[in-house]
Amino acid sequence: MDYFRRIGQLRRKLTRAGLPGLLVTHLPDLRYLSGFTGSSAALAVTRRTARLFTDGRYTAQAAEEVEAAQVEIVSGQPSIAAVQWLAAQPGLAIAGFDPARTTVAELARWKSELPTRMRRGFLQAAPSPLVEALRCIKDEEELAVMTEAALMGCRLFERILGSLRPGIPEVEVAAELEHQARLLGAEGMSFETIVASGLRSAMPHGRATTEPLPRRGFVTLDFGIILKGYCSDMTRTVFLGKPKPGERKAYQTLLEAQETAVEAVGPGVKCEEVDEAARGVLRREGLAEAFSHSTGHGVGLEIHEPPRVGAGQTTRLMSGMVVTIEPGIYLTGRFGIRIEDMVAVTRTGGQVLTPAPKALIEL
Amino acid sequence: MDYFRRIGQLRRKLTRAGLPGLLVTHLPDLRYLSGFTGSSAALAVTRRTARLFTDGRYTAQAAEEVEAAQVEIVSGQPSIAAVQWLAAQPGLAIAGFDPARTTVAELARWKSELPTRMRRGFLQAAPSPLVEALRCIKDEEELAVMTEAALMGCRLFERILGSLRPGIPEVEVAAELEHQARLLGAEGMSFETIVASGLRSAMPHGRATTEPLPRRGFVTLDFGIILKGYCSDMTRTVFLGKPKPGERKAYQTLLEAQETAVEAVGPGVKCEEVDEAARGVLRREGLAEAFSHSTGHGVGLEIHEPPRVGAGQTTRLMSGMVVTIEPGIYLTGRFGIRIEDMVAVTRTGGQVLTPAPKALIEL
Repeated sequence: MDYFRRIGQLRRKLTRAGLPGLLVTHLPDLRYLSGFTGSSAALAVTRRTARLFTDGRYTAQAAEEVEAAQVEIVSGQPSIAAVQWLAAQPGLAIAGFDPARTTVAELARWKSELPTRMRRGFLQAAPSPLVEALRCIKDEEELAVMTEAALMGCRLFERILGSLRPGIPEVEVAAELEHQARLLGAEGMSFETIVASGLRSAMPHGRATTEPLPRRGFVTLDFGIILKGYCSDMTRTVFLGKPKPGERKAYQTLLEAQETAVEAVGPGVKCEEVDEAARGVLRREGLAEAFSHSTGHGVGLEIHEPPRVGAGQTTRLMSGMVVTIEPGIYLTGRFGIRIEDMVAVTRTGGQVLTPAPKALIEL
Repeated sequence: MDYFRRIGQLRRKLTRAGLPGLLVTHLPDLRYLSGFTGSSAALAVTRRTARLFTDGRYTAQAAEEVEAAQVEIVSGQPSIAAVQWLAAQPGLAIAGFDPARTTVAELARWKSELPTRMRRGFLQAAPSPLVEALRCIKDEEELAVMTEAALMGCRLFERILGSLRPGIPEVEVAAELEHQARLLGAEGMSFETIVASGLRSAMPHGRATTEPLPRRGFVTLDFGIILKGYCSDMTRTVFLGKPKPGERKAYQTLLEAQETAVEAVGPGVKCEEVDEAARGVLRREGLAEAFSHSTGHGVGLEIHEPPRVGAGQTTRLMSGMVVTIEPGIYLTGRFGIRIEDMVAVTRTGGQVLTPAPKALIEL
């Protein structure tokens, strides 16, 4: 990954925001900017220098991972060392921090470690999430890793189909899926695996329970893996037994909604327009009420990133963003269905990263 | 769990802190006080009332889980609704919040939603972590669940021993362990499973890699499960093949350090004294430098809770606390060993919750 370029981009954003320096403490931001994967660090960026502070446990690891920033090993809290280093830079009158990633207690602590004359004005909340805005737009290397992560998810889905039989507890399906993920080389799951079957498929966030899969009914699998730090996210809903015409029709409608939203993805398109593409199809079939959440979200080093693809979201998609498209319908006491792909925004439209089949699978 | 009693205890703490109301947003705190396990909520506590705010996804769940607080379903952010509700309580002039669990951005947002005259003085940082202080001391029901969780860890350790063979990749051991955990009924792992073998055992936080287990050498397994929301945490180090006298001696010394620290646990004992009990044994054998971290930490609804059992920690242990005792030695280029139990502080001493054998297992 080209960390020098990323830090250069951040510097341009800092200049535009009128900030000569920035303190970065959110670990995914720090990893994005420097490649450092340890669990305790802070990064200070000025117009000239980038300096990463971490503790003695990470001496070897920081030396190996970090190229684009100087590394300083400290014995106290890395963020305090970073604040003090920023305060000691000649001519640096203010430094920004991310108010959404800084607790009230941390800020008070940092201020208390500054020289008295600097306590009031030196640390300033950055006006907008600067690193997050960079992370939204994935570069080619990131897209390559995310494509690989999404494909691993598809392979997992294929492998797990053989385990879906009436009577198998949902948690066993989840366990098998996570086991296979490990064997395929995933670093972990990107969130708690959802296996929701039968009546439970009507719960948008049905954790896997000890309930056995039913003799007939929908089974929703929503899962993701982590590969080289990047998250995948996909959902498929399959049917155990033979669906009734109403169930089949509902599935087809939801699939049409999902595909319509995927087709709506493109640079310059507002997030709310993509959401409305899915919602419109469901509304036409009288299912608008059954779709109780947003259509999707950005994904990357974290499982939930901006932008949010939902009603009222006027953010415009840009080439390089990766979002999930995951409409669902939930009919309490009957069933639920959700289908989710990861879609990369390209210069001309959208590129689905999740090629697993979406036609209704009957087992 | 007796949520009414917990909220009562919190009220007594609020009175002592001079706070007539408190906003609780940290989810483990909220679960501790109300039993609610959803992912989006805020709890407002006054001298008379406790009121939980959550969104429409959790209507049924909140009704089922929450007894000791009124439940209000809101369409916006639960924390904002809670702040506004607190501000509307007659006679309530201030409400506390936890500065260690509140971001600068959240606080600004909450203030902006208050009537102008209340923006300055109404929300005040609580002087000490009030709910955390309650959570430190486990009641009988919590101890019963944590005992069960720790025992499940021991059963897992027993089951995994058969999988430890030269040539098996570390990640496969981790995968098998996590698979078995699911089958035993764990809700998940309480942290990323550590499997560190051979030279890698010298890394205190060696994630499982694709490296195969060596023909001879130590293998450190550090893992925990989640049961009914509570975390377990244990470490055992076994030997593949036949240890040399020096390796065996190092193991015995570390075991002596661990058992000495366990014996030091008791009510009224300072955390630093327990740490020193382990460290003293290692110092006697010239291994003080090889023990590069603290002896342990509290555990409960979160994997790391107060108190910290380390040098300079003057907090006194109290009956009902549960801490890990996990000294280790790390000899870079040679090997590492760590042994960890969970220990509950009783009225007279310490009760080990992790009965898995600690004598050196040779496989």
